[in-house]
Order: sequence, then C-alpha cells, then structure tokens
Amino acid sequence: MKYNQYAYVETKLETQVKELLQIKFLPANYQDLSFAQLLAEMVENCRAEVQPNDENARATKLNEFAVSLTQTLVAFLDTKPEEISLIEFYNIALQLLDYRVHYDYDLNDPCKTMKKQALPMVDSISNKEELISAFYRLLNTRTKNGQLLIDVMAGKGYFYNRKNELPTNQFVFLNGKSLPVFDTSKVIREVVYVESDLDTDGDGQSDLLQATIFRPFESEKMPVPALYTASPYFGGIIDNEKRNHNVDENLTDATEWTNPQYEPSAVVKARKPSDENTSSATEMAVGKSSYTLNEYLLARGFASVFAGAIGTRGSDGLRITGAPEETESAKEIIEWLHGDRIAYTDRSRKHEIKADWCNHNIGMTGRSYLGTLQIAIATTGVAGLKTVVSEAAISSWYDYYREHGLVIAPEDCQGEDLDLLAETCQSNLLDSGDYIKIKPKYDEMQANLLEKEDRKTGQYSDYWENRNYRHHTDKINCSWISVHGLNDWNVKPKNVYKIWQKVKDLPVEHHLFLHQGPHYNMNNLVSIDFTDLMNLWFVHELLGVENNAYNQWPTVMIQDNLEADIWHDEKDWSNDVGQEVVYYPTDDTELQKDGNGKKKLTFLDLGGKEFKAAKISETAWQDKFIAGDEKWAKPSLRFTTDEFIHPVTIVGRPEVKLRVSSSLNKGQISVALVELGDRKRLTAVPKFLMRDGQELGFRFGTDTLQEFVPDKLSHAKLITKAHMNLQNYADMQKPAAIEPGEFYDLSFELQPTYYKVPVGSKLCLIIYSTDQGMTKRPLEETTYTIDLAKTEIKFNEK
Amino acid sequence: MKYNQYAYVETKLETQVKELLQIKFLPANYQDLSFAQLLAEMVENCRAEVQPNDENARATKLNEFAVSLTQTLVAFLDTKPEEISLIEFYNIALQLLDYRVHYDYDLNDPCKTMKKQALPMVDSISNKEELISAFYRLLNTRTKNGQLLIDVMAGKGYFYNRKNELPTNQFVFLNGKSLPVFDTSKVIREVVYVESDLDTDGDGQSDLLQATIFRPFESEKMPVPALYTASPYFGGIIDNEKRNHNVDENLTDATEWTNPQYEPSAVVKARKPSDENTSSATEMAVGKSSYTLNEYLLARGFASVFAGAIGTRGSDGLRITGAPEETESAKEIIEWLHGDRIAYTDRSRKHEIKADWCNHNIGMTGRSYLGTLQIAIATTGVAGLKTVVSEAAISSWYDYYREHGLVIAPEDCQGEDLDLLAETCQSNLLDSGDYIKIKPKYDEMQANLLEKEDRKTGQYSDYWENRNYRHHTDKINCSWISVHGLNDWNVKPKNVYKIWQKVKDLPVEHHLFLHQGPHYNMNNLVSIDFTDLMNLWFVHELLGVENNAYNQWPTVMIQDNLEADIWHDEKDWSNDVGQEVVYYPTDDTELQKDGNGKKKLTFLDLGGKEFKAAKISETAWQDKFIAGDEKWAKPSLRFTTDEFIHPVTIVGRPEVKLRVSSSLNKGQISVALVELGDRKRLTAVPKFLMRDGQELGFRFGTDTLQEFVPDKLSHAKLITKAHMNLQNYADMQKPAAIEPGEFYDLSFELQPTYYKVPVGSKLCLIIYSTDQGMTKRPLEETTYTIDLAKTEIKFNEK
Repeated sequence: MKYNQYAYVETKLETQVKELLQIKFLPANYQDLSFAQLLAEMVENCRAEVQPNDENARATKLNEFAVSLTQTLVAFLDTKPEEISLIEFYNIALQLLDYRVHYDYDLNDPCKTMKKQALPMVDSISNKEELISAFYRLLNTRTKNGQLLIDVMAGKGYFYNRKNELPTNQFVFLNGKSLPVFDTSKVIREVVYVESDLDTDGDGQSDLLQATIFRPFESEKMPVPALYTASPYFGGIIDNEKRNHNVDENLTDATEWTNPQYEPSAVVKARKPSDENTSSATEMAVGKSSYTLNEYLLARGFASVFAGAIGTRGSDGLRITGAPEETESAKEIIEWLHGDRIAYTDRSRKHEIKADWCNHNIGMTGRSYLGTLQIAIATTGVAGLKTVVSEAAISSWYDYYREHGLVIAPEDCQGEDLDLLAETCQSNLLDSGDYIKIKPKYDEMQANLLEKEDRKTGQYSDYWENRNYRHHTDKINCSWISVHGLNDWNVKPKNVYKIWQKVKDLPVEHHLFLHQGPHYNMNNLVSIDFTDLMNLWFVHELLGVENNAYNQWPTVMIQDNLEADIWHDEKDWSNDVGQEVVYYPTDDTELQKDGNGKKKLTFLDLGGKEFKAAKISETAWQDKFIAGDEKWAKPSLRFTTDEFIHPVTIVGRPEVKLRVSSSLNKGQISVALVELGDRKRLTAVPKFLMRDGQELGFRFGTDTLQEFVPDKLSHAKLITKAHMNLQNYADMQKPAAIEPGEFYDLSFELQPTYYKVPVGSKLCLIIYSTDQGMTKRPLEETTYTIDLAKTEIKFNEK
Repeated sequence: MKYNQYAYVETKLETQVKELLQIKFLPANYQDLSFAQLLAEMVENCRAEVQPNDENARATKLNEFAVSLTQTLVAFLDTKPEEISLIEFYNIALQLLDYRVHYDYDLNDPCKTMKKQALPMVDSISNKEELISAFYRLLNTRTKNGQLLIDVMAGKGYFYNRKNELPTNQFVFLNGKSLPVFDTSKVIREVVYVESDLDTDGDGQSDLLQATIFRPFESEKMPVPALYTASPYFGGIIDNEKRNHNVDENLTDATEWTNPQYEPSAVVKARKPSDENTSSATEMAVGKSSYTLNEYLLARGFASVFAGAIGTRGSDGLRITGAPEETESAKEIIEWLHGDRIAYTDRSRKHEIKADWCNHNIGMTGRSYLGTLQIAIATTGVAGLKTVVSEAAISSWYDYYREHGLVIAPEDCQGEDLDLLAETCQSNLLDSGDYIKIKPKYDEMQANLLEKEDRKTGQYSDYWENRNYRHHTDKINCSWISVHGLNDWNVKPKNVYKIWQKVKDLPVEHHLFLHQGPHYNMNNLVSIDFTDLMNLWFVHELLGVENNAYNQWPTVMIQDNLEADIWHDEKDWSNDVGQEVVYYPTDDTELQKDGNGKKKLTFLDLGGKEFKAAKISETAWQDKFIAGDEKWAKPSLRFTTDEFIHPVTIVGRPEVKLRVSSSLNKGQISVALVELGDRKRLTAVPKFLMRDGQELGFRFGTDTLQEFVPDKLSHAKLITKAHMNLQNYADMQKPAAIEPGEFYDLSFELQPTYYKVPVGSKLCLIIYSTDQGMTKRPLEETTYTIDLAKTEIKFNEK
C-alpha cells in the first residue's frame, strides 16, 4: 500500500544541516567525522531509547543491523567505507522504518519494497553531504505505522533524552513542522467558567460556560496558540436513542404548514474583563480530549480547549440545538481566549482568570456537531479565529434533518430530531442541584423545539432559516479546511458541497479533502499524511511560520473510490467540473443517452409494512434494495445502462427530472443512483492496521493507522440519492395542494458525489418512495406513476 | 446489575478515622466541626478535581447536589442539620457514585437504586461518627464504572492535589488496599539484559535475556515488590497464522509412533553477580505493558517487569516452546530480581546492573502463554516468587495441542502447533543483524520441533512428557491463584482442573476463579471486584501487610452461567462435588437414567468435505452442529433427555464409555454434551459497558468495565466435549493396532465444567467423529458403529 506523503517540504542542504544540528541528530563535530563514523552516529541516534551520552550502549545497537544477507552493519563499518550503496542503505532504512527483514523485505532487494510502499529514496550516497540528506529525508519519511520516523523516535524518547541539550520554552521545527519537544508529563489541565451575554435559562443572570484547557507546561513561560474544539458532548451525553420519534406514520398534507418562527432568548451583558493580573485556575479538568489530532498537536505546543457551552454539564443554560444562541455561546469561548471576554476560576464568579498563556491565535478542530460549530463560529467573523478544520460538518440544520420538504433522517438516526439532540447534550441535567433548578425551563424548551421543528410537514421555515449558516459566509475571515466522507449518509455531502461553493469565492485560503469514509475522521490513513499536513497548516496559521503550507498540496483532494491509495488533485468540486451528460429511460427499463421511453409506469409503495415484519436492519434493507433483491426491489422502478466500456467519473450533483402522480393527495419520491457490477469494493470503514501503533508524543496516548481495503465481493454500491415531497413541485420552500392521479413535474438535485464507474459496471437509476432508513414509513399504500417521457437524469462526467 | 464486592474489609471506626485522617479526607480538626460542616467538607473532598485549599471553589461544588426533589444540598446545609436521612444521604451518594439523577435514580427513592445495584448502605446517619462511617463505606464502594470511589477520585487528582500533605516514599493503605499515591508522571521505564545459564543458539556464549521494567519513581528511595509477566509476545510477534499446518488430511495409523525424545540444549555458566554497587540503566523501554492490572498496580507502588526470554526481540537464543529451556530462561529473570543472577545495562555485557529497587518479593501475572509460564516457573520453586495469579494457563502442552492420542487444535487455531508458536515468538529474527546470524540455527530448531511434535500420530511421548508442568507441583512453594473461563476452548479447562487437583493439596494458600468467558481476562467485570481483590492479595503477599486477604473470599468462586452477577462459593472443583448420576441411551435416541438401548447405530463421517465446500467458519459450523441443524447433524448420533423439571448443576469431568467400531484400521471419536432449549443465554464475551471509563491511576491509562449480558435467543449451548483416538482404547499413552469392523471399548473424561441446566432445558449427548474446528478433517469417509448397550455418560450433579 502506498504511503503517500504531501507534507514533505523540499529543503536545501544548508537548512537540512541547520535543522539536524539543532535537534542534535547531526553531531556538532560532524565535519571532523569520517563517512563511516557519521553513518554509525546517525544510525545510533535513530535508536532513540538509548542514552545519547553512553557510547557503549549506543554501539551495541549497531549489532541489530545487516547491510546485506552476508554482512552486518558492524562488519561493514569495520571496512571504513567512504560511501554506501542504495541497497545497503535501504536495508538499514527499512529496518528503521519498522519493516521486518524476511517477512516484509528481502535483504537482496530492499528498493523493491521502498518502491512498493511509495517511500522516497535518494539517488546516491557517495559522500557525507549525500548521507546527511539521505538521513534528513528518512527522518521525514513515514514509517510502517504511518508516522514520520522523527515522530516515532520522539515516542521512544529522542527529545526526552536530549531535553537538556535542546532550546527550552520554544517551538522547534523540522521540515516546517513543529516537533514534540514539549514535556507531556507536565501538561496543565484546567477548567474555567466564561461569562456569556446570554441568559438562556431565564434566571436573570448571565449563563456561565465551562471551558476545559489542556496546555503545555511551557505555556507558563511562552504564549502558545489554542486549538478550540466546541464539543456539546464534552460534558457527557444523555443517551436517549430509544426515545426517537416514531417514523412509522403516514405523511401529512404539507399545506397544514404554519411557517414556525425563530424567537431569540433573553440577552444580558457580561462583566468586562479587567486590566489586572488575575487568578490561577483552582479546578483541574475531569473531561478528556476526544480527538487524537489535538493530542498530537498538544505534544507539539498547541493548547487544546474544549467547551460544550450552553446547557452542558458544568455550564448554565439550555441547549437550543442549531440556534443562534448556540453559536453565540460557543463563540464566546474564543472571545475569552482572545482577551475580549471575562472568565472566572469557579462558578461563584468571584475570581477572574485570563487566558494569558494564549498567543491570541486560535484554530478550530472537530468532526460532526463539533465541525458544525466551526462553521457556525466562522460565519460570525469573531476576532482571534485564524483557521477552521471542519470535518463532516452540518452547514444548514435543514440539510441534516430534512430534505426538499420531507423529514429525512441522518443515517442510523431514524426518528432523531433537533429536540432529541438537544436533550442528548443537555448534560447539566445530570447534576441534581442543577436538575431541580433547570428542569421546568428545560421542559418548556423541549416542547418549543418539538413544535417548531415541525415533524408533520417537513417544510423549510423561518425556524430552519435561522439554522442555516450559509447565509453568513460573507463574515468569514479565517482560512478554511473542509473534510468530508463521500459516503457520509449521516451528515450528507450536500452540507459541505453547498458551503464550499461559497467559501471558494472568498478571499481566504481554502482547502477541501473528500475521503471514501462514512461519518469518519481521516487523520490516520495510510494513503495520506493528513496529520502532518495539519501540523504544517497550524504552524503556518497560528505561529506565522512561512513553511510553504499554502502551496504544499492541491486545493481539492479526493480519494479514489476504486484504489484507496490514489488521491485526485482537483481545482474545484462543483457542477462546473467535466462534461454534462443526460440519460433517459427506455420503455424496456434501460437507461440510455438516447433513451426515449413513452410509457407511464407505476409502482405500489408499501410504506414500512414489509420492512417492519422482516425485522431486518436499515443497512441490511439498503444493501438488498440497491442490489435489486426481488422482494425488496418490488416497490421501485429501475433503469439500467449498458456496461461501461470506458471508466467515467461522476462529479458534482446529478439532477433528476420526473413527471409523477400519486394515488393520494400527498407523496414522497426517492431517487437513487447505483453502480452495479460484481467486484470487491472498498470496506465501508477503514480497517485498523496496527492498533494503537502511533505514539502521539512521548508516553502520551496513541492512535491507530487505518485504511480502506478491498472488501468481499458485492453486487452494488450506492453512489448518491435524494428525496422529495411532491407537494413542493412548484416551490421548494412552500408546499402546494396536489390532486390524486394528477401529474406533477419534479426537478431536484441528488447529493453531490465524485465517483469513478469502472469498466464493466452499469449505472442504475432507481425511483421509489419509502426509504426505510431515512424517510417516514407510511402505514398506508400509495401508487406512484412515472411518465417516462418526462424523466431524465443529468450529471457531469470526466 | 449487581456490583458485588468481596474486597471490602470490615473495619473498626477507630481504624476508619485513622485511615481517613491520613489521606486528609477527614479534616484534622473534624472534632471541632458541626455535623453540617463535616458533611460539607466530605462532599467537597469527593470533588477531587478542586484545589483542596481553595474554600471558595470547593463550596461552589456543593451547588451540584440536591438532597431531595425540592431541596438543594446547600439549602439543606443552611438548616444546620444534626443528622441526615438515608434518602437525603444516598441522593448525594448516588451522584458521587456517578449515577445520573432522573435517568438512573429517582430523588424520591435513591435506596431502590442502591439495592438494585447491590450497593452497601449504612443503617442510620444520626451523628458525626455514623457520618464518618457512611463516607468510609462510600469511598470503598464501587461507582458506576466498577471502580471504588476512592480510585475514581484518585483518577481526578485527589492524591495529586494533596501530594504535599501525604507521607512521601511509602505505601498508603485504605481498607487493606494500596492507594495510587505514586507519581505516575515519573514512572521509570528501563531495559536490562539478564545473563542466562543457557546457550540455546549454540554460539558458545550464554544467552542474554532482555527484561523491561516499569517501576515507580519512588522505588529509587524505597524498595518495592515486582510483578513479573513472562510474555513471549512482548518483543512483538511474527504473524504466521497463514502458514498453519494442513488439517485436511487422513488419520495416520498411530502404531507408526516412535516416541520422540526430548534433548536438552547446551548449558554454560553465567557470571556471578558482584557485591558492588552497579550502574544505572542506559536504555529506556520501548515495549509497553499489555496488561491493565499491572498498570493499576504500578500506580499503587508495584513495579511491573516484562520479559520474553529466549528467542524474543532484544534477547539471544532460540524459542523452544514449552521446553524446560523456556522455563529456565523465564525463571532467570526472577533470579535477577531476587539478587541471585547477573544482568547488564546493554548487550556488550560490560556494565552490571542490579535490581536494587526491588524488595525481593515477586508475584506473577498474565494470561494464556503468560499464565502458562507462571505455572512453569512456580513448579521450579525459584526463590523470591511469592505468588502467582495465573489466568487461562496451560498446565501441560499436550493438553493444549493434543488430546487422548489425537491432534486437537485450540479453538480458532486449526493447524497451529509448537513449531508455529515458536516461530511466532522468535522475534529476534526481526532485527536483520540477529537474523543473518541466527537463521541457520533457527531453521534447525524448527525442523526438530516439527518432527518431534509428531503431528502424524498425536501420541503422548517423552517429548510431551517434558512439557507437562504437573509433574513438578511438589516444588511449588508460592501461593496460588488460578483464573479460567469455563468456556475457554483455546486453553481448555482440563489444564486448570488437573493442576488444581494437585495444588489444592499443597501447603500453600490457593484460590480458583472460574468465569463464564472464553479465553479472556476477568479483571474488570461488573459482577466481581477482581482488581480490588488482587490489590488486597498482592499487598498481603508482597508487602506482608495483614489485611485479611486469606479470609476475604471463598477458595473457589464460580460465575453462574444463567445469571452473570451470581458467583457461587465452593470449597473445591472436582469430581468429589455433588452426586454421581449415569445416563444411558435408549434405542429411540433418548438419554435416560434407566435407558437400556440395545441397538448398534452407525453414522457415516464425511471428514471435512462438506465443511470445506460450504465455506463457513468453524464457529458457524459448531453453532449449527450443536443445535442439530439437519445437514450438519447428519454425521452424528444424538441422545436427548426429557426437559429438566428441577435445575441441576453439572460439576467436574463427565465420563463417557462407548463401544465403537470403525470401518478403517484407525478412527477418532468425539463426544459433546450440549444443553438444548430456546432461551437468551449470556453473550460469549462480556459486553463493553463504559469504554475506557476506568482510570488506572492519575492520567495513567484506562480500562473498560464489562460483563456478560443476555444475548439474543439461541437453541443450544455446548457444555463440554472431548475427543479420542480409537487406537488408544487400551492405553492412553500407547497406541495399539485395531481391526476394521471390530468393537473396542473406550472410556474417557470430557473437559471439566460447572454448568447449571435450567428448568425446561434438555441435555443432549452427541457422538461424532470429525470436529471441524479441532480434529483433523479426513479426506476419506469412515463408518462408525456404536453399541448402545455399552454406552453411557456419567457425571456429578448438585
């Protein structure tokens, strides 16, 4: 598997020498050493666990190596060589990179393994300069566990063992990235209480918001940047999945819609921060970082700040999911970090505490709800926020719980909605002292959410309009990285796609990563050195170091869906990429560019009846449904292309047009685009390759290398889908009455994609109604009729 | 679910007060405080994350509590109470134990939840003494995460925040158990090289054995005990599963047996340890503890030592699995810890290093191979070894890879054998320098193992005899704890049963735990406080503290197979427990106490043919086979009892007698005893309940609470089984020729069990031949005939 590397910064020999001298990898007297002595010194240095000042112990480590099948490294050094062949060097190198002789590579041909794993090699090592460069490249090469060799050495104590020889209380860089020279055994973990301008629980007092800080001990002497993760789950969650709303119910006539309005909560004014020196924290953190990227960066000097904000354990207030109040409260933590807001050491509000350890440069990290709040906050333009790295984030809450006038669930969350997510995060209910005080207000808020989210009609309203962050992208003034899984059916790709279309035109640096995962992180894949890229990125954005971060990797990077270790380099991800093609159905259920079907075909939708009776999971249903299983495919129409004779990549948002009639005065139409063909596709989630094999710092937690790998044979793969309410045929934002048996023209876009259809596969357009995992599942039957003459699917291909 | 607690030591009020004063939980001036003041102080102390010297911050924490649905704790304290009701107290207590108001318990009736979870309560709290006792009990009560409240508080910084007020460089005890007062941020992790008396690689030099030590920083000032885990996997493993031997082959006529002999390796003499002060370690540990129990105890002052011994990475020599050389080399680490053997700082053998941090009291821990080596070492009687806690251990290697004259695989290890396990652990091959030196010797050793393990006949031989630790139990002079899963089909229960029959008669303290798991640990179950018991045990055995450990829990504890939170208290586990009953088959395939079948029934064994064609897993085969699936049950005879009208517990080793003929001059007979009945049985492995929810110390790694819980409905459960070679009908240790079509009388014992058959279930005796997951799978067909008149199964029931 290829260990692609994008974060390696091309570096001049002079700089290489300087950096290696600084970290004591290159001995100060290197110019006086022979080639052989220098080789020995540098191999010994790689064995980071040995005391650097014990020559005897260091030398024993050389015995571990062979340069060929017949010669040990020690014997080789005894010949006083003036150069080393590539075979000899990469036999040593592969062992340093944790590959296993005989089992992973052949001492007769190490370069074969180097190439297979896409590990970089130098051209020759015939003098000391070339030897230094070869080692510089090697230290900055990914080992078998996915981390750079220098990071693996750090995990074994390289910097710990040299702490007295390294500069203190400062960042140390190698190849543009910050090194884990900070003392992870002394990390400061503390809690503060930020005063909000909100009074969401209506007790007449401003809400206090608990924030938890993990910061390097060295930040007592030297301000450091902060990575802020706004996590509503940080205080714990209330597991209420079993209370999810019933979705086994008939559709409602959408004209009952009343356009519920958003009403803001009470506002009070927090005290201003003083100009005086303030107290130290008196409470240690109990919560822990939930994100290995933050831990990795904490070992490298970046503080990590977690806060749940309103309604979460340790904080006042009510959780009003998706509302401007939520954004405001989450944003206020940054105001404190930036020196613009007051915080206290405890909830008595007596002792002020400042973030004087912070250099006022703040970045954000996090996935899902935690990514969402990055978008929320970035669209306020708050001072101090320099960059966001928003993963699998919601950009409009309507696109999370609704679609085109329908209640549509995130994957694996049938029946979930704003009110239930609010309960999940209202963790301050878990302390009985808070509970007996806040419960009545909380019940009121819940009733309000339940009413206004309007699960009856599923229509867009003022209430949802106020939960659409895309209206405020003009305020974004920080740089931007979005990460999303192309198979994320929880936070569907439309969320990232639609905000990307706006961000890409803003005068801020912006990047997009699309991987092949579902609702998942990508920071420890084999195929891309994402963690190293983020190191480079945050060093550039929050420490102001010019390390080429802006030119190091393409604007848009997209993981291939056939071969996980290929990443496509794109300038954009939109409907402007590629050529438009249109497919039409034929009367004999083919799908052709020149299809000219004239028939009117019907299918009988059974709602959730058979699904419930079968007691199978939603995933099992979807697998059978898209694969065309006879029983489950019945309530659908399917149109299939010929086998593709050239590979084609579908890019952007396919658009369907349909002329439809329903046997009732209401109706929901689903459309899926599926690839058919028996082959081994990638696993749905990455496979764990070396559990806990990555050290995030020295004795400081671990992560696990992973990658998508070929799975067992399957017949079909969902490319994209969408759902639409018939009653929105005329206007996506306003329902209309419809007549049973009358035809209406629908036109809507599917979720965006970037999907390579391989040679030999077919495309299949499926038209159906009830989607067991996402739509409501009516109790009544409905007959839908599709007029093929007015049916088409259009998309861009490249 | 019941949080049973066996490690709570009944303690007098006077001692309680002394212990609470020592750990600063009870303020020194407690006699001057009012009841209300004392209550406030102690609740505040439980919020361990708050600085103990900040009265303001401490007081804010009281706001988190309510004593009833209408009164906060603060309001209650304002009334200056002189006592507290049990409802009020346990409302506070449950919150401190991490239960969640409203979701886990009702403020109107907390005692209901206390009782349901089997949490201890005091009778009344009407004065300060009773309040102190109530808190003493509470600190020593298991919280929702399974740990004692004091341990949870330690994980939040209780001792860290009070480190200047606590005694330094000494163990601190509460309720007989050692507290995590050691500074986990400063743990010393180092590597040494112990010199062996062996020269297994035949290079004329004694083998050096790498040992890795994790020890409290405080051990620099004060000797501490060592917990030694002999782990052949510590240096990494060579994953060779795919090379497992082919088991799809016909049986061999066992008379070909040649009785392979064990031949010892060369012996040399190591240097003697000097009397001088010696060097400090120069190499830090790279390997990590694989066992959370060790980490838990490390935070509590016990050093943890890991060594792989001969053949493992960092060590010299060849891995000769199961051989006396393996025992010798693993034992030599203890000799160093005890001061009786020399070790060096590195492999140059120049600088001696002593274990002067060790108090010379050594205990052992570990599971599977790591448990096995405890038995191996204990049977040498080595000085310094005070106790073993041996989990899922092999007591004779024949009982791991063979049974009654047959090659029988451990579960999930078809085709594995001594030679392959040796390769797995020969991790010094992974360093190319060692590789090119040792490979020829290694290949020789492998060839020797392959020949002498004798996969052809499966017979017991001198070679296996030398891998049977049970012959040396007379040398055991340490105390003994065995832990085994009653459903362990990897290391089958016969291993623990047979050594237990010997150990129980020795003049050493001995205990046995049998849980419902497969090849699994039990140290973090809900139903038993095993970790706390081990704390008590090691404090008693290695620190010599009289804490009632010997009388604290029964000699034999056995987890119930119907209700996971019931543990049976037994004096012994043997065939002497209960009443003997005998069941006989009837001609119409029933199994009755008065069965009198006269028929001769046959079945046609198909070997592995159909199994291979079906491409199902061994587990799937076994599930279908025992449940009587038509296709898979065909090559077997089955005899079933009536439904049981009283519950019956089967104890010990059932014995079968069979008169059998084979259509060939060879044959293998399998017998299984199965419980039939549609019901929800316990999960095969414990369910994870709060992932990483247990803190092993302060910022020092985590563990996960787990327990067996009712699984989905199943029809059958394997109770026990066994396999036997027909050619051993006369002598288990010597094969005989047999004639096709002739009848032979077999008599053999099944694996031991302790199994409660519930009312309504039936027992089923299955007689078959090929066991797809364990026996060889012949390519040829064999007809077996069973004479029912000479067939019976006998077992003890209670």
